Amino acid sequence: MGQGKFLRVVFLGILSLAAFLEVSAAQSQSQPSLQLMPMPLHVARGEGGLKIDSNFTVALEGFKEARLESARKRFLGTLSRETGIPYHFEATSGEASLTVKTSGASDAVQTVGEEESYRLEVTQTHAVLTAPNPLGAMHGLQTFLQLVTITPEGYSVPAVTIEDEPRFPWRGLMIDSGRHFQPMDVLERNLDGMEAVKLNVFHWHLSENQGFRAESKIYPSLTGKGSDGDYYTQAQMRDIVEYAHDRGIRVVPEFDMPCHTTAWFVGYPDLASGKGPYKIERKWGIMDPAMDPTRESTFEFIGKFIGEMTTIFPDAYFHVGGDECNGKEWDANPRIKEFMRAHGLKDNAALQSYFTARVEKLVAANHRIMEGWDEVLAPSTPKDVLIQSWRGPKALAAAARQGNRGILSTGYYVDLNQSAEEHYLADPLAGEGATLTDEEKKRVLGGEAAMWSEFVSYENIDSRIWPRTAAIAERLWSAQDVRDVNSMYARMGVVSDKLEAYGLTHQSVTRPMLQRMSGSADTRYLAVLASAVQPPLGYERGELKEYDWYSPLNHLVDAVPPESETARKFKNVIAVIVAGNATPQQYQEAKDQLTLWRDNDAMLQPLLRRSDITAELAPLSQSLSQVSAIGLRALDDLQNRRVADASTTQSDIQTLKAAEKPQAVLRNMAVAPVEMLVQAAAGAKQK
Amino acid sequence: MGQGKFLRVVFLGILSLAAFLEVSAAQSQSQPSLQLMPMPLHVARGEGGLKIDSNFTVALEGFKEARLESARKRFLGTLSRETGIPYHFEATSGEASLTVKTSGASDAVQTVGEEESYRLEVTQTHAVLTAPNPLGAMHGLQTFLQLVTITPEGYSVPAVTIEDEPRFPWRGLMIDSGRHFQPMDVLERNLDGMEAVKLNVFHWHLSENQGFRAESKIYPSLTGKGSDGDYYTQAQMRDIVEYAHDRGIRVVPEFDMPCHTTAWFVGYPDLASGKGPYKIERKWGIMDPAMDPTRESTFEFIGKFIGEMTTIFPDAYFHVGGDECNGKEWDANPRIKEFMRAHGLKDNAALQSYFTARVEKLVAANHRIMEGWDEVLAPSTPKDVLIQSWRGPKALAAAARQGNRGILSTGYYVDLNQSAEEHYLADPLAGEGATLTDEEKKRVLGGEAAMWSEFVSYENIDSRIWPRTAAIAERLWSAQDVRDVNSMYARMGVVSDKLEAYGLTHQSVTRPMLQRMSGSADTRYLAVLASAVQPPLGYERGELKEYDWYSPLNHLVDAVPPESETARKFKNVIAVIVAGNATPQQYQEAKDQLTLWRDNDAMLQPLLRRSDITAELAPLSQSLSQVSAIGLRALDDLQNRRVADASTTQSDIQTLKAAEKPQAVLRNMAVAPVEMLVQAAAGAKQK
Repeated sequence: MGQGKFLRVVFLGILSLAAFLEVSAAQSQSQPSLQLMPMPLHVARGEGGLKIDSNFTVALEGFKEARLESARKRFLGTLSRETGIPYHFEATSGEASLTVKTSGASDAVQTVGEEESYRLEVTQTHAVLTAPNPLGAMHGLQTFLQLVTITPEGYSVPAVTIEDEPRFPWRGLMIDSGRHFQPMDVLERNLDGMEAVKLNVFHWHLSENQGFRAESKIYPSLTGKGSDGDYYTQAQMRDIVEYAHDRGIRVVPEFDMPCHTTAWFVGYPDLASGKGPYKIERKWGIMDPAMDPTRESTFEFIGKFIGEMTTIFPDAYFHVGGDECNGKEWDANPRIKEFMRAHGLKDNAALQSYFTARVEKLVAANHRIMEGWDEVLAPSTPKDVLIQSWRGPKALAAAARQGNRGILSTGYYVDLNQSAEEHYLADPLAGEGATLTDEEKKRVLGGEAAMWSEFVSYENIDSRIWPRTAAIAERLWSAQDVRDVNSMYARMGVVSDKLEAYGLTHQSVTRPMLQRMSGSADTRYLAVLASAVQPPLGYERGELKEYDWYSPLNHLVDAVPPESETARKFKNVIAVIVAGNATPQQYQEAKDQLTLWRDNDAMLQPLLRRSDITAELAPLSQSLSQVSAIGLRALDDLQNRRVADASTTQSDIQTLKAAEKPQAVLRNMAVAPVEMLVQAAAGAKQK
Repeated sequence: MGQGKFLRVVFLGILSLAAFLEVSAAQSQSQPSLQLMPMPLHVARGEGGLKIDSNFTVALEGFKEARLESARKRFLGTLSRETGIPYHFEATSGEASLTVKTSGASDAVQTVGEEESYRLEVTQTHAVLTAPNPLGAMHGLQTFLQLVTITPEGYSVPAVTIEDEPRFPWRGLMIDSGRHFQPMDVLERNLDGMEAVKLNVFHWHLSENQGFRAESKIYPSLTGKGSDGDYYTQAQMRDIVEYAHDRGIRVVPEFDMPCHTTAWFVGYPDLASGKGPYKIERKWGIMDPAMDPTRESTFEFIGKFIGEMTTIFPDAYFHVGGDECNGKEWDANPRIKEFMRAHGLKDNAALQSYFTARVEKLVAANHRIMEGWDEVLAPSTPKDVLIQSWRGPKALAAAARQGNRGILSTGYYVDLNQSAEEHYLADPLAGEGATLTDEEKKRVLGGEAAMWSEFVSYENIDSRIWPRTAAIAERLWSAQDVRDVNSMYARMGVVSDKLEAYGLTHQSVTRPMLQRMSGSADTRYLAVLASAVQPPLGYERGELKEYDWYSPLNHLVDAVPPESETARKFKNVIAVIVAGNATPQQYQEAKDQLTLWRDNDAMLQPLLRRSDITAELAPLSQSLSQVSAIGLRALDDLQNRRVADASTTQSDIQTLKAAEKPQAVLRNMAVAPVEMLVQAAAGAKQK
């Protein structure tokens, strides 16, 4: 094959021609659809749009507070970034381009179910944003920002009337600062991202076996001995609370107990059920250490600690974890067994319920509502306790039936590398949830994306959270019947670019990581391989290779996004081809992509040897080439209505089955579509 | 032309094949040269290298201070970013991989000429960094970080012995926060960049006609009325001083007077020589307002203000500007004319000297040494006053001859869009400087890159400063005879990637800006145009189009770097071709580049119409196509030893002359090399 032809297909692949064609198609409509995410409740389009030029101004009317003024400034700052137009912050006289009319105050401490609605009307001459309170006004400002686009007449916002409010009052993102510490700037830019897609709860997982991250002045050894020096000072936590509040986001701290608590025990071994001494855990998984529920001193400690933390976290809810106790330390401790007998606690679940009930009283004594994972729910659990469900919609529905309120996290674990589509279609009120009565349904408050951090560093965490969490945000904000997956992907692409412009790094992180692992600024061949692979699904990664806290997260699996746009689009084209509906251009697209993948290996192999981190990719690259060659053959058969030979098909399927297994801890995303092609080519015989 | 052929050349252009080949060539040497910038004084290579894996540790020995411990942590943090290996910060026991031995303290407030040397010895088993003080140790840590590369055996640092110290004690970067305000994070990441290339002075230009940026508690209206709300609080300025000190960088504040002072006068019109009232200046250029040197109240104000600022800025030097007075307000004020007569001040220069002498006493009374631009130098100027030269080496030499110390900024104005080569070859002791006696030469302390901010926002400022300032840093640190331009460009490319990894955004800013102005995520055709153009040189930009403070900096001229790598490499290849030394591959490279540029226009034109910001690029794109077609013809003639026709040559030269003129405020960098080709093809006739 000539170099020219090869480079041509390399080029096609890298630049995602498909993406380009999609955008063009959208632009060619007379009135392109609004690129909003989450989709508002009601949208009515007008004619033309409002110019966003250097004369654009924003005025606040009605209720005033510092947070609104700060929101105005941030809005102008973001608009400057969006347009390159330098807006200055001084108040302006005369009629403003955008007037924000706020009727009254929000709650001083943001509450669950507080009003979040707004109305945005944009005409060719001005825009008016009306909201009952600052919370709604801030949501409306984000919608306005998403509407800004460049046109032949300059930057503008289309004329539109939007009336909007959320479906669920609890729309969260959990970040696990315990396993891999996340610096302040990571948290701050993720709060910016949350604001952009109208998420309103930051659930902060602050303690884990691998690290205790919240400074306590009463118990300084929690971080002194349990954090490797990586923790948030009280001032920093207060900063986060304020930063979040400025963006309409509540902060719910989580201190997981009685398990996931090894880091507590390094400094305070008396809290533990085992003998100690304890060291900060360096491995991943469910660990044995658990708090000792039989000692009064344990509850004294917890009570004082919760009291201290509530001076930092004003939110009505306080999360005490409660998940994944294996009970082994309890089983091994005769005093605890004796305590259980004496108190009629028939098993470890009962012992944990006893513990939870005691902790609930301590939380309540500090004027907070307890929140916990599924495991904290027992028949006797007070009705105001909030259940966060990781076990699934059935568990959530059971909680609702029992009278407790709950939120869904099953389906929203962004560490598991599922597709945006899967997250998007998971609905808190689908499945078992759909069978609830209306009153029970009201107890389902929403959901939370969960970013567990075994396999993310501060470097790549954004790429796990975004843009897929924007799809989850839409699920929790928009109407239940907003579930067109193609529309979601198109709009998520646009909001992903905006999020990157707002300072998140989910897109831009890949290239420097490829550059670093290859030791070269020229990453084009490695990028072609990267476009075809995804990290393993679910918990498979830990089964494929041994990982612990020390493991460098600097391999290809850490650099590629959880969902490859190239692979997703390739699969879509193949689906059309297999269904027999493809245009010649779609055949050509598929062929170009497969040719690119097939021929890349020859160029990449010598380069992989230059670095020990890329050396492990050699078999994967070779396998991609092989799979793509099979795909090209099948595609050719299909296009030319040739019948595939049975033995060839059989041998191809065998090759594909082998290629299906992860290599270098990566899934080859070409395999499944190519298998579809091979099956279709074989099936053609029967016609 | 077929789509395939076109895409092939598009691809070649975008991915800079030339860059790739350069890297390959370097790698193919048995022992590649060290990619250090600035180049150390003495380097001796050893065999093999030291592994940088997750067992890598750093220990401090000898003199201890908080700054060193913080440097150790930042070093490990940077190393984590460089390698993706999660280093934790706790002290480790046992022999460290890298031991930093520091003999004694640095000066509490960093001083000019303070010891900065270090010695770094790396073997296959360990590394030892020895320095007399923390300043030297911190420089050595930066050298170590630059040495980290990925190899087939993992990350490592080559075995090497380095002995290093700077040529000049004053190596600075000035940032103008006055004209366009620069937020804290911009300053902080630029201080990180300065540390990486061993610059040691941050000259902070804090007041301008367009804004007063430093909070004064004594005179709150300076920022209250003169800043549009964009200013640094005293706490923030102290943070910058501490942040810089932690990185071995002094902070010299500049409050420019008696001119460039409009923003002072908005709140305090009595300071001015004119009648007022004054408004914050929105235009660029030299303005009339000047302080009134005839009133004692002016000096009382300045004295108190300097006193307040010295509580924030501990550095021995205090910069009072003094540049560009046009004297118009003085000429127009009869009281001032009368004062001049009464005091025998024969002209405005004499009046300014009187003013400067008074200010110098106020600076001295606050235990600071005055620094000023060329204009502050008069025969009577005290010998300790430091002159910053923007007028050139002659002015600097004159100051040195007069007994004053000075630094050079001429040649280092990074806002003027010169090449890295030009900056690199400007030497404080070349030209007139070379004629100084040894004693006079010692008065030349170094130099400063100057980032004036008429045409930079916080968005693109990094791309004006970096990577070219790294070349200036080498000029000021390394030996005078280190001036191989090819070596500089190769090493600057590597350090540029590292700087981007450290958080600077000079490389990554272009793509989102192209995306924004084109309203599309697909920027490939716009990027091809971008690769051929550069912003105007010197002060031409302001002559080509009207700009003021409100002008959006969101056009292609703002998005492209001051020096195009593609254009530079193209020009180099053409030079080889014209000299008759080209290989067939080099002919092919030139042809591919020209074909890419020629054929891009057809694809780009329809897209340019989609946005009002790109619409202005249509003639430029067309002109690039035309120029490239001429280049292809001339190249073909040359390669085939055909004689170019005289009338064709003449018409081509005419076309090129027309294309030489900036369009859309951009220079077409293809023109000059193509003209070389055309001339060469015409010249062939005479042979």
